[in-house]
Amino acid sequence: MKIQRTPTLRRMPTYLHKLYLMRQEGKTYASCTDLAKYMNIDLIVTRKDIAMTGLAGHRHYGYKIDELIDAILRYIGWAQTLPATLIGAGALGSALLGYTDFTTYNLRIESVFDINPAKIGTQIHGHTVQDMAAIEERLRNAPPKIAILCVSNTAAQQVADTVIKLGIRYIWNFANVCLTVPENVIVQREVIAGGFAVLAAKIKAAESGGMTAEE
Amino acid sequence: MKIQRTPTLRRMPTYLHKLYLMRQEGKTYASCTDLAKYMNIDLIVTRKDIAMTGLAGHRHYGYKIDELIDAILRYIGWAQTLPATLIGAGALGSALLGYTDFTTYNLRIESVFDINPAKIGTQIHGHTVQDMAAIEERLRNAPPKIAILCVSNTAAQQVADTVIKLGIRYIWNFANVCLTVPENVIVQREVIAGGFAVLAAKIKAAESGGMTAEE
Repeated sequence: MKIQRTPTLRRMPTYLHKLYLMRQEGKTYASCTDLAKYMNIDLIVTRKDIAMTGLAGHRHYGYKIDELIDAILRYIGWAQTLPATLIGAGALGSALLGYTDFTTYNLRIESVFDINPAKIGTQIHGHTVQDMAAIEERLRNAPPKIAILCVSNTAAQQVADTVIKLGIRYIWNFANVCLTVPENVIVQREVIAGGFAVLAAKIKAAESGGMTAEE
Repeated sequence: MKIQRTPTLRRMPTYLHKLYLMRQEGKTYASCTDLAKYMNIDLIVTRKDIAMTGLAGHRHYGYKIDELIDAILRYIGWAQTLPATLIGAGALGSALLGYTDFTTYNLRIESVFDINPAKIGTQIHGHTVQDMAAIEERLRNAPPKIAILCVSNTAAQQVADTVIKLGIRYIWNFANVCLTVPENVIVQREVIAGGFAVLAAKIKAAESGGMTAEE
């Protein structure tokens, strides 16, 4: 079984971001040096990351930008459209709905649900917030692939149970709890504090000298 | 130079979360098995993570919860309070201000700034939003350690330049751009799409069989 390294995967959207920018600027080729410089990381890290996509570079020219974008999208699994429902239209949910780059990554948020009567029926970044009480009726016939959970810690497990019952197998969980799910369900838990842990470790390293974090 | 692994650092807040829960339940000892089960990851991963803290376990009992919490906080660099200013009180900024766990992690958001007149003077989770135009005057004498940037991609570099001029050396950047900063400034860039890349890779793996992601 081949293991994909999480840090490599996490860097891929940033490489893509830079490649799209370069393409917009009319460039045809990109090198690992371009990407490493943009991210301010070691060239060797970027070389290893890009090697994971299996794409061969062109001597002296680097990679064809179009080919590299395709290779990264295939590597991540973003070559197919990933339809999703977003549950919880609070501050974080709203922020995600406004995140325009998701379209680039083939994440398509098709529906938004909330329990708050003040929010139901309102529009957030072009999405109409629907009543959570109606989720089974609305999604039963054609459940999306992914459920994005932006609900409170206390509600998260119950909401997960609901979407799993609807046949959704992939959950992107922003609540600060680990969910209990059947074996065939995959949860990606987003821990905002995780990035803060990396920053704190970098601060500690900078102030004590010596130790440093990987990224 | 000792390298701290980013995935290990990213898991630490979740271990802490579980340890606080167990302490609340009146427990005194925790084992790696408890933590691994909670996160639904391999025991060996948790064993390696906890070993990084340098704390010795008690045979048959596991780790004293109080000692393990302290060891993790020290390992990450969360033993000291980290004062911060948050810039950009939009949806994402508001979500971060409402994230109660930050207090646990010794992140203290002391001030909030925005350019939007409709937001200046309003309260968000107990913080009064101040006028960005006044940031130099307000923070000049005692700049906090960290600036949290929740501003637009187009504003991010200018805001970074402003806080760096004030003497802030650590930036937690949620904008989707890589910042250009002097060598003595450390930027931790938070890429929401990074977690989505990990999820997409897991979906691809689950649907094709075989390959899997690390986390």
